[in-house]
Amino acid sequence: MTTPSSNGTTIKVTPKIHSSVLHLQPPMDQTSKHLKFKAAWPRIRDELTEYCTNQGIPTDAVQWYEQNLNYNVTGGKLNRGMAVVDTVEIIKGAVLNDEEYYKAAVLGWGVELLQAFFLVSDDIMDDTSMRRKKPCWYRASGVGMIAVNDACMLEGAIYCLLKKHFRHTPCYLDLIEVFHDAAYRTEIGQLIDLTTAPERHVDLSKFSLHKYHLIVTYKTAYYSFYLPVALAMHMCGVPATYQAEGETIEPYKLALSILLPLGEYFQIQDDFLDFSAPPEILGKIGTDIVNNKCSWCINTALSLAGPDQRATLNENYGRKDAAAEARVKEVFEAVGLREHYARYEVEVHERLEKTIAAIPEVPERGTLRREIFTSFLEKIYRRTL
Amino acid sequence: MTTPSSNGTTIKVTPKIHSSVLHLQPPMDQTSKHLKFKAAWPRIRDELTEYCTNQGIPTDAVQWYEQNLNYNVTGGKLNRGMAVVDTVEIIKGAVLNDEEYYKAAVLGWGVELLQAFFLVSDDIMDDTSMRRKKPCWYRASGVGMIAVNDACMLEGAIYCLLKKHFRHTPCYLDLIEVFHDAAYRTEIGQLIDLTTAPERHVDLSKFSLHKYHLIVTYKTAYYSFYLPVALAMHMCGVPATYQAEGETIEPYKLALSILLPLGEYFQIQDDFLDFSAPPEILGKIGTDIVNNKCSWCINTALSLAGPDQRATLNENYGRKDAAAEARVKEVFEAVGLREHYARYEVEVHERLEKTIAAIPEVPERGTLRREIFTSFLEKIYRRTL
Repeated sequence: MTTPSSNGTTIKVTPKIHSSVLHLQPPMDQTSKHLKFKAAWPRIRDELTEYCTNQGIPTDAVQWYEQNLNYNVTGGKLNRGMAVVDTVEIIKGAVLNDEEYYKAAVLGWGVELLQAFFLVSDDIMDDTSMRRKKPCWYRASGVGMIAVNDACMLEGAIYCLLKKHFRHTPCYLDLIEVFHDAAYRTEIGQLIDLTTAPERHVDLSKFSLHKYHLIVTYKTAYYSFYLPVALAMHMCGVPATYQAEGETIEPYKLALSILLPLGEYFQIQDDFLDFSAPPEILGKIGTDIVNNKCSWCINTALSLAGPDQRATLNENYGRKDAAAEARVKEVFEAVGLREHYARYEVEVHERLEKTIAAIPEVPERGTLRREIFTSFLEKIYRRTL
Repeated sequence: MTTPSSNGTTIKVTPKIHSSVLHLQPPMDQTSKHLKFKAAWPRIRDELTEYCTNQGIPTDAVQWYEQNLNYNVTGGKLNRGMAVVDTVEIIKGAVLNDEEYYKAAVLGWGVELLQAFFLVSDDIMDDTSMRRKKPCWYRASGVGMIAVNDACMLEGAIYCLLKKHFRHTPCYLDLIEVFHDAAYRTEIGQLIDLTTAPERHVDLSKFSLHKYHLIVTYKTAYYSFYLPVALAMHMCGVPATYQAEGETIEPYKLALSILLPLGEYFQIQDDFLDFSAPPEILGKIGTDIVNNKCSWCINTALSLAGPDQRATLNENYGRKDAAAEARVKEVFEAVGLREHYARYEVEVHERLEKTIAAIPEVPERGTLRREIFTSFLEKIYRRTL
């Protein structure tokens, strides 16, 4: 078994030694991991602006692009981006050398760029005021609808980075396709959401738990959960199929079968917290009810409500009115939403644990590790914000 | 020499016979070419909506997508899309069989999808009312800012089609990269334009013929002229280099060196017609002056104007006021813009003719043909609308 060392030479390690090598390094805690990932950003941003400068683009325009990148790509929790790096580390089973780390970070920041593209666009569509404690980009001074083009440039930046760093690697086309698929699916999810729950036209007959499942899978789970893992798998050369414990594994399908339900669980939790968490813990006041959101709470309540309760929901959901909101919350309590959620959380956690435990592991590098999925599940289970 | 016939079997033809075969078919006139290209659209659109239906997307959302596609992709002049098909025919030097035609049409409609993505976005950014004699999509009933997502789906559709029709062909990655580059460059061009000439803040000191050259090259020439030809070249397997007349040809660079100036010429013509053409011929009233556009006319006038004329331009350009517009037009006449344009047109035409004539042609298929470029140049030269 060989692994590239950080100075670029190849050293031989047995799996045993290799595992001890890992222990020699104190495990990086979340904060230093976060700092290391953040430290890659200025170089990535500069690569993007330097590409423009080298093409002779006027300074005004390059500075605008730099502001767009700084304002919209940083300042989030970076969970999606860091998941790429974490997954690469788990699959390689070794500390990454500087070059490997930077490549993984490019993919991670690619996911953050995609997310920034969605957020800038969504804020325009939803007429949102604030994002990450600042005015939304389209509301920033002098920006306005130029934000539409800026959003698209954030997406375009991904393929510019992939071309620079992966063009001559075997995974280049796979990386492009995974990004394409994730973007298109997210846009389809946004379309289902917008046609199901337009902010100004409340019609709960369009809602259902099935529609909710589709929206969440397309709009959130695919790019937030499957994309980071699939990118890491492609970067590590995980093949489309391999043999393990006498069966043929399709690792990407297997990953999808875990990460989509995991993403749905994450979003259901998010929706439930919007209704149930105290504002001082949530960090904001829940607005799903007044904003006519097609959330897990309303869809579950509709599935449990009697005719009178349904009428109350019809009359009061999606109204910018505190009394109407309170009446909706009363129905949520009356149908037992809290208990329902608690049962769902235990059940989905158990189901996912079982599916993850059933993944066959083989000693070969470049194959699936259960830890990829357990690390996600642990971060999410019973989170309160 | 072999060529696939329309029923899929392979027939042997000598170059001589093959050339006669071409003459046996009456040359398709522009109208029937147009009709044939248009006839491919419903199948392409249905492939895009069926992809969604097959994934279980709700009918409401699929119908919305279909409307988005119909409203925004059709109804234009289709010059860009048809240029792909024309170029494939010229390079192959033969009538295309049904399968080849459809593949070329997919690429052509891909360019039209990209154009639709730009137009829907630009109309939001420019606050435009009408497009192709209908309200702009974002102004259509019930659409509004959902148009931001709809625009992105039009772009996403391109990669969905490429994956379906070209995934197992050697040119797949090249096609993707050419689309990526074209989209990113167009967005950069839009950014330069928006930072140079914001509609509500007139500052002619930011204008220059150099900036104009950059904006036009990035925002228009690359996707309107280079993209269709490069796609056709990749589809026909034109290699990155080949030998002709004892020299090494780089056909894509050569194409770029002709098509970018050709695209600039096209836009300069467009700008000049906006100022000079009678509305009954132009089909609309020119609005570049009142809308503070960074057009060839203002940049050329600025380069020719004396201090008093420059002051008049500064005071009157970009104002929604007929008297101010008339004063700008007076300066345009006084500096001799018409003569200047006439000289430019003759000069650029001669220069492009010479460059095209110097392209070495070799008998091998899959190499550059001068006709690709002359057919563009003839369509553009001295056009009046």
